[in-house]
Amino acid sequence: MENNMKTVDILLRNAEVLTMDHEFRRYECGALAINGKIIEAVGDEKEILAQYTAPQIVDCAGKILMPGLVNAHTHVPMTLLRGLADDLRLDVWLMGYMMPVEREFVSPDFVRLGTQLACVEMTRSGITTFADMYYFEEEVAKATAEFGLRALCAQTVLKFPTPDAQFYEESLELSRDFIQRWKSHDLIIPSVAPHAPYTCTAEILKATAALAAEFDVPLHTHLSETAVEVENMRRENRMPVIPYVKKQGLFEAKVLAAHCVHVDDGEMHTLLHVNAGVAHNPSSNMKLSSGVAPITRMLEIGLNVGIGTDGPASNNDLDMFEEMRLASFLQKGFSGDPTTLPARTTLLMATRLGAQAMHIGHLTGSLEQGKRADLILIDIEPLHNSPRFQHDPNGTYAQIVYAAKATDVKDVMVNGKWLMRDQQIIGLDEEDLLKHSRDYSRKIDQFLIQRESSVLSKLVAIGGTSEEESFEIQLKIRVDDRNKLIEKLLHSDMEILRKRHYREFDIYFFFADINQGILRYREDEFLNEMGKIEQVRSRLTLIGPTSEDKFEQEVLLSRSRYLAPATQSPRFYREYFKPHLAKEIEKDRIRYLVKFKDVEFFINFDEITKPPIGQFVEVKSRTWSRQDAEMKSHLITELISFLGANLDEVTSDDYIEMVR
Amino acid sequence: MENNMKTVDILLRNAEVLTMDHEFRRYECGALAINGKIIEAVGDEKEILAQYTAPQIVDCAGKILMPGLVNAHTHVPMTLLRGLADDLRLDVWLMGYMMPVEREFVSPDFVRLGTQLACVEMTRSGITTFADMYYFEEEVAKATAEFGLRALCAQTVLKFPTPDAQFYEESLELSRDFIQRWKSHDLIIPSVAPHAPYTCTAEILKATAALAAEFDVPLHTHLSETAVEVENMRRENRMPVIPYVKKQGLFEAKVLAAHCVHVDDGEMHTLLHVNAGVAHNPSSNMKLSSGVAPITRMLEIGLNVGIGTDGPASNNDLDMFEEMRLASFLQKGFSGDPTTLPARTTLLMATRLGAQAMHIGHLTGSLEQGKRADLILIDIEPLHNSPRFQHDPNGTYAQIVYAAKATDVKDVMVNGKWLMRDQQIIGLDEEDLLKHSRDYSRKIDQFLIQRESSVLSKLVAIGGTSEEESFEIQLKIRVDDRNKLIEKLLHSDMEILRKRHYREFDIYFFFADINQGILRYREDEFLNEMGKIEQVRSRLTLIGPTSEDKFEQEVLLSRSRYLAPATQSPRFYREYFKPHLAKEIEKDRIRYLVKFKDVEFFINFDEITKPPIGQFVEVKSRTWSRQDAEMKSHLITELISFLGANLDEVTSDDYIEMVR
Repeated sequence: MENNMKTVDILLRNAEVLTMDHEFRRYECGALAINGKIIEAVGDEKEILAQYTAPQIVDCAGKILMPGLVNAHTHVPMTLLRGLADDLRLDVWLMGYMMPVEREFVSPDFVRLGTQLACVEMTRSGITTFADMYYFEEEVAKATAEFGLRALCAQTVLKFPTPDAQFYEESLELSRDFIQRWKSHDLIIPSVAPHAPYTCTAEILKATAALAAEFDVPLHTHLSETAVEVENMRRENRMPVIPYVKKQGLFEAKVLAAHCVHVDDGEMHTLLHVNAGVAHNPSSNMKLSSGVAPITRMLEIGLNVGIGTDGPASNNDLDMFEEMRLASFLQKGFSGDPTTLPARTTLLMATRLGAQAMHIGHLTGSLEQGKRADLILIDIEPLHNSPRFQHDPNGTYAQIVYAAKATDVKDVMVNGKWLMRDQQIIGLDEEDLLKHSRDYSRKIDQFLIQRESSVLSKLVAIGGTSEEESFEIQLKIRVDDRNKLIEKLLHSDMEILRKRHYREFDIYFFFADINQGILRYREDEFLNEMGKIEQVRSRLTLIGPTSEDKFEQEVLLSRSRYLAPATQSPRFYREYFKPHLAKEIEKDRIRYLVKFKDVEFFINFDEITKPPIGQFVEVKSRTWSRQDAEMKSHLITELISFLGANLDEVTSDDYIEMVR
Repeated sequence: MENNMKTVDILLRNAEVLTMDHEFRRYECGALAINGKIIEAVGDEKEILAQYTAPQIVDCAGKILMPGLVNAHTHVPMTLLRGLADDLRLDVWLMGYMMPVEREFVSPDFVRLGTQLACVEMTRSGITTFADMYYFEEEVAKATAEFGLRALCAQTVLKFPTPDAQFYEESLELSRDFIQRWKSHDLIIPSVAPHAPYTCTAEILKATAALAAEFDVPLHTHLSETAVEVENMRRENRMPVIPYVKKQGLFEAKVLAAHCVHVDDGEMHTLLHVNAGVAHNPSSNMKLSSGVAPITRMLEIGLNVGIGTDGPASNNDLDMFEEMRLASFLQKGFSGDPTTLPARTTLLMATRLGAQAMHIGHLTGSLEQGKRADLILIDIEPLHNSPRFQHDPNGTYAQIVYAAKATDVKDVMVNGKWLMRDQQIIGLDEEDLLKHSRDYSRKIDQFLIQRESSVLSKLVAIGGTSEEESFEIQLKIRVDDRNKLIEKLLHSDMEILRKRHYREFDIYFFFADINQGILRYREDEFLNEMGKIEQVRSRLTLIGPTSEDKFEQEVLLSRSRYLAPATQSPRFYREYFKPHLAKEIEKDRIRYLVKFKDVEFFINFDEITKPPIGQFVEVKSRTWSRQDAEMKSHLITELISFLGANLDEVTSDDYIEMVR
């Protein structure tokens, strides 16, 4: 007997084995033989023990032995940003918090530490393979490979500056080098990640697809995550997202598409046709209100749909048990049919289908001879998961999906190597990682507390442009009919350098602490001679205490800080700055740049239309010295009288003060 | 100093205290003083330690100290049925599995054990108070009180037999005795539970409300759980559910209404007006496809909405952390607004609002002076919940709701008594409970395996009626025009005892194992003289092997088992019996009961309309002895020839065999 037994490295016996193979083979009392990193055999304990022996024989004491979970989409270094900001709109969350903090803190060290923290957390929740997308991705690859998890690591490429690149060409080069260096690694599948259609140019999509195709590695991206993304795509390109990226040749590469929440049947068939994999992220899609992806339909037509946690900053953890449960619940809840997405299919998504979606189904995702030994042991008999019924063969799948917790995972093996035994992590010191991570959270807290303390710094944080000051000397005066004065001006011999006519829509944000100043959001509509809108411009201006100094006749010296064009909506700024009061003013402005006694002045002939508080003439000039200011204040008074305005009507109030 | 310090029983210090009071007071480094079962004081550690001293001073090491979670709706003994059957339609799950098993196994011992298991599981997940509804509810109360949790225990009342009562009057009496005995208990709030409007008569609703009102105890019920419930209510009573139960006087009592998934704005205002509490059960509502309750709106108008796990058989656990997370995610996901139901509000629902919904807000739900000491300690700094940011005061709430797990709960106290210290349960032996529970699961498995093995026993399980056999002697013959034969009959001197005309719609279920027989679902439409439908009847018939014996001229002796009127839809039976094949037949049947040579015979003049396989005449008679059968087979042949049918056209096939 003995002599025709084959010796392997490890034998796992006395386990309920769920292979998750195409026949969903189950072995009530099963065993698994491992040779090196490869699964040599799986089956009934009797048969396996009759054929194999090994120096290491593990009694699994009736636990569930199944393939490790596959986290099909995440951003692992963001463990360091978990809980940074929650319950916010996607744009406020992303552009107000995530991106500014990432700009400030993301470094190779940050990425390495965040990855190590994630590796421990994922191992604890039974994840043996994950698909990542971040910056300094090679650091993710290094840290992951050192610890021993399997991962698809995708270097992010964006059309705007990132923590690791000023221009997309740089990220593309990074990606190429990274892929070349790691292409044949045993655990890491290097990849490139054009972030999303709306954050990439067509050129970037083409280039990244070509790169992935050149090295035959997967391409990782976000597609059709929100309804807004699809609306914009339809408006700008008259087609939905999937056809658009297809047009850009994205599917020349083996694509792993995260989200696909808003895709129609045609798009799903396209994804199927080009063999793209889909990563469903239920927690993230719910928490960020993106919607419910049509997973049931995708599975119906045969798409490879995996399940992902997305980044821990939008989840807020890396727990695939929560994701499985939620995935099944959402499909049931939304279809109105509780038989939808049953436990076994859900577990399949979280294992083999996920690996197939990542285009590494040949390596992992199920317990089959020849595949890598990526596996976990789960105790599904703790009190919160008892009793255990035998009458229904699908009962075990239901226990795992509906009642088991990440903390029920006892042991984890990847590529034939134990990463966790009896819940003890092998190879990383958790206390050490946590200590290090607290340094980051302290710094980030300081950064945000300082920022939140000042409207100006919050502006700088999102504006991304440096501030510039300007001093202005100005006089404002109420008039009955601005046209009379304009007549006067036009019939004078004053030199007119420029004329502009526009409508201005202002929203002023006031803050409890008046020293914060007043923030103005202004949209300028430039009108041509026919009164048609020629151009629109939005700006944010932080106005300091209105009056710095005062001269004769209420002539004022004021200061304003001009900051960044307003790229976001007024709603964004309202939620981001949380002013305690907001007021709106609309005016029709005819502005002349004139030369009066060799000095340039702006003359604004304004009619305030909302609220209708009348007409005004403003004379303004930039100034940089007190002496210059003195001189100009004389001229301004002269100019005003020259135009025939009544100096008794002078007001020192800013418009916003008049309507307060 | 010392002498003007007050001595209390227990001091909890060095904790981040979330009081969940009306001002959401938080103490970064707080403390709590407990005297007996009462919270004496809560505040900053400095202040508390300056005023109080105690023999037991607990250093909470920076953990979160907060009110225990309130599970606002559950059926705790069902821990013993967890995972019994999943991924089924509500009716199949309930009437095919839960109710038959409950009829068979639910006893005082079952209820006691199930409750003890639930007490341990709930304590482990930080629940200190729960609202229950089950049978033998006094056993739930006893087991809960012995262990030390706080609970609203509601004795179920139904219009049909329950495991603890044959008629509703009995359950009502049980409820009255139970309430009287427990009314002034320190931990238990006895209550009565009319199960739901569709499982209770108006009389039951009135009687239970009157009972609850008489003793001023809460009334616990299910309202508007599914769209079907509302549709039926509208059809039968021309009003939605809330107005209907109001009409029955249900709100004379302090109501705790579970689910309220399908309620309109008017109904929500009614609930508010009558001070009813609502228990939201997100997992159950998703898993059973009931829908998403309008929680955000309910909170907006000021309803007390708590969160519940529902029974562990439909969840499948008692984990309030999962419920909180899901509650928030669902509202965000469905509103399209990620700021909806933020973490702090969600945690409020799971604590103070839940207690208020249960009408015990004066006792528990928040850490306030004078309330009971129901509290938990959570470690929110494990790796899966790190780092911890300080810049946002709501960050802690977000950590608890979005990233914390039930397993992060370390200590639990109810009514001033520790139930768990450092995750060690005090007062119940888990191993012992699990051992006992395995006896039940084994028995239930046997019961179901035996039942699933036979179509007949599955029928008996849901039919609830005993089987009855009948032997039939019959002859079938194909004819060109049944009317000719009818003419012949009418113009003969044969005595006609009865005539009936009906249409029959049959669905035949076939099973892989032919010995299971064939199950027939039949709807009979009785037509009156004008061909109008007079009456409809549905029956299930399990047909044994078609032919028991054969006589001259293909006269057959056959047996059929008649079982129970069909109370469920064909879809129900298809999913419950899972036949491997189903076929439909429709026929128009004119049936005469005649006396031929002093023997009664049924003559069926049939036209098979779907599939259109022609017209037939069947002569049948019941028989109970072989001799009688012999005699009748002669007469049948005679009768057939008398009617002028061609005996060569005799067929021994059943209709279903002809169309197979």
